[in-house]
Amino acid sequence: MRDSVRELTVDLGERAYPIIIGQDLLGNYDLTPFVQGSQVMIVTNETVAPLYLESALACFPGKQVDTVVLPDGEKFKDWQTLNQIFDRLLEMRHSRKTTLVALGGGVVGDMTGFAAASYQRGVPFIQIPTTLLSQVDSSVGGKTGINHPLGKNMIGAFHQPEVVLIDTDSLRTLPPREVSAGLAEVIKYGLIRDTDFLGWLEQEIAALVNLDTAALVEAIYRSCACKADVVALDEREGGLRAILNLGHTFGHAIETFAGYGNWLHGEAVGTGMMMAADLSLRQGMISEQERARAIRLIERAKLPDLAPAGMTPDDFHRLMAVDKKNVDGSLRLVLLRALGDAVVTDEVDALELDATLRAFCVTADGVTT
Amino acid sequence: MRDSVRELTVDLGERAYPIIIGQDLLGNYDLTPFVQGSQVMIVTNETVAPLYLESALACFPGKQVDTVVLPDGEKFKDWQTLNQIFDRLLEMRHSRKTTLVALGGGVVGDMTGFAAASYQRGVPFIQIPTTLLSQVDSSVGGKTGINHPLGKNMIGAFHQPEVVLIDTDSLRTLPPREVSAGLAEVIKYGLIRDTDFLGWLEQEIAALVNLDTAALVEAIYRSCACKADVVALDEREGGLRAILNLGHTFGHAIETFAGYGNWLHGEAVGTGMMMAADLSLRQGMISEQERARAIRLIERAKLPDLAPAGMTPDDFHRLMAVDKKNVDGSLRLVLLRALGDAVVTDEVDALELDATLRAFCVTADGVTT
Repeated sequence: MRDSVRELTVDLGERAYPIIIGQDLLGNYDLTPFVQGSQVMIVTNETVAPLYLESALACFPGKQVDTVVLPDGEKFKDWQTLNQIFDRLLEMRHSRKTTLVALGGGVVGDMTGFAAASYQRGVPFIQIPTTLLSQVDSSVGGKTGINHPLGKNMIGAFHQPEVVLIDTDSLRTLPPREVSAGLAEVIKYGLIRDTDFLGWLEQEIAALVNLDTAALVEAIYRSCACKADVVALDEREGGLRAILNLGHTFGHAIETFAGYGNWLHGEAVGTGMMMAADLSLRQGMISEQERARAIRLIERAKLPDLAPAGMTPDDFHRLMAVDKKNVDGSLRLVLLRALGDAVVTDEVDALELDATLRAFCVTADGVTT
Repeated sequence: MRDSVRELTVDLGERAYPIIIGQDLLGNYDLTPFVQGSQVMIVTNETVAPLYLESALACFPGKQVDTVVLPDGEKFKDWQTLNQIFDRLLEMRHSRKTTLVALGGGVVGDMTGFAAASYQRGVPFIQIPTTLLSQVDSSVGGKTGINHPLGKNMIGAFHQPEVVLIDTDSLRTLPPREVSAGLAEVIKYGLIRDTDFLGWLEQEIAALVNLDTAALVEAIYRSCACKADVVALDEREGGLRAILNLGHTFGHAIETFAGYGNWLHGEAVGTGMMMAADLSLRQGMISEQERARAIRLIERAKLPDLAPAGMTPDDFHRLMAVDKKNVDGSLRLVLLRALGDAVVTDEVDALELDATLRAFCVTADGVTT
């Protein structure tokens, strides 16, 4: 089963690390070469633990492995839950040579990564992402953090893992909505930077929705490679890396409006990318055909094509104002100059933006505003 | 008044920054060249604000300057208080280009630095330390963080400031106990690495206790220079930097036993350094004369020479076990091979350690155990 393992390196100089992608890795792959000390703390959640915790334990033979099981959900991505990790580390007397392991989706990864960045001012960590979204997104980039009541991911750190282990078998237990949410980020890489990959996705999107293993390995590999390219060029998010936020400013507003966790992050990003494509057309940057092609692919991934019921353009304006993509108060968005060519711009036409917001908002009786 | 300004650079490559030391700087020194964006958030506490906040505001002409005033004390060095900084930053819509300013002692500096390290995954910060301890200790090294109920400074980050501004006039309002606590760290630099400075301190200790300005500028400059040397050689505390923890393992145990804030950090370190000198003698590393010379200098700085009343050797053992200087469970201490030559060692003789602990512990009726 191991002959199809693919590996790529995220090239960040002394913080470079490998991503290992394949089938049937959990429970079989020895991760101890990536552990410096004798202690390991696996952080997971109540949903993932019964499925994969035992297999994950088998990846660390000969180590003192402790575990902490968090409640599941974006709404627990807060200080109180993060503190459960610190409590456990201190109760079990983990030294500053311990290694943290994130076993789960993006929330577990972000919190475990931030715990690792902050425990005794920084310890190593390993990611074992079990959702498609976390495999193609948080595997690369080193972003970690928690939410604040006034904004998502407002408190965190950049902290790179020692290694990322991606077992595509873990997607078998993923609800279809979460598969679609992950595909939103996969499609994003095609839209922002890789027209070849975009064409491949248009061929394979049905296979991906149906969890075809070969297609998944290829999509995850190409997504991680694309993100790794961008991050290596701009580790601290000074410029280029901002294109990875295509759809995210709209998406964060949607998530905040819906209440953390009611819309999946990837679902909100999917709709947000449709909105970005729509605004790119209205600002004369792409053609009607390009807009339609982008929206069609996102729809075929079974992602929502309208903002949450009841959300208004005013809600978007209010919620986008605190989004961290704004620099010194001006609205900054990622738009498309072409399919496969994203650009960060402060030049957002207010009237065209309103037109896009109206086009994606529905009133309580189902009519767009 | 400005002709006596001294400046040194903490040489950390692209994170190098200046420390500016002198009289009458607060309210006069323009810090805006160190501010990248348009927003500044000054973090201070209820004790310092009435004394120096207005002067600090005058250091940032033309900027949007907001302020947050925290309660004063080590016992507030926790997540709840840290979160007041995040609340204020988000309420006032500070972007990721904001600059945080720590105006106060070590607690304000540590919390503001960690807030800066974590707000939107990292923003710049400036330190204006107003206590002697924070001027000679937390000015250099980039250590930031908060306490956890199970241990001091267990949650934090390494985050370097843009600049440190030290106004010796701010020491005029410092209680004598805090002057002594600061002198403990000053003496530490002499003990661990600089016999010339140690000789100078034996000449000038009375002048320092009496807040002689010229002596203070010299002592602060040489302390920061010593720490900067050590930190530049070992930014992430891999090896050499650990000698800066002379007296700290004993000291942290004392602080935890006494309850955060009841003993000042520097007071606990002062007693801890006496204990380290005592153990160094017992392990045959220094002479009786060297031990006496170290203890005498610390006493002349008016620092306590016994552990808190009621603290037992068992308390030390219990509280030192969770101290972060332990690697994989073995006790690691900083001892003296000579005055001016500290060494980190795992080779602690258990019987000699017990003898030292007994020598510094007093029972409830005032008799050493």
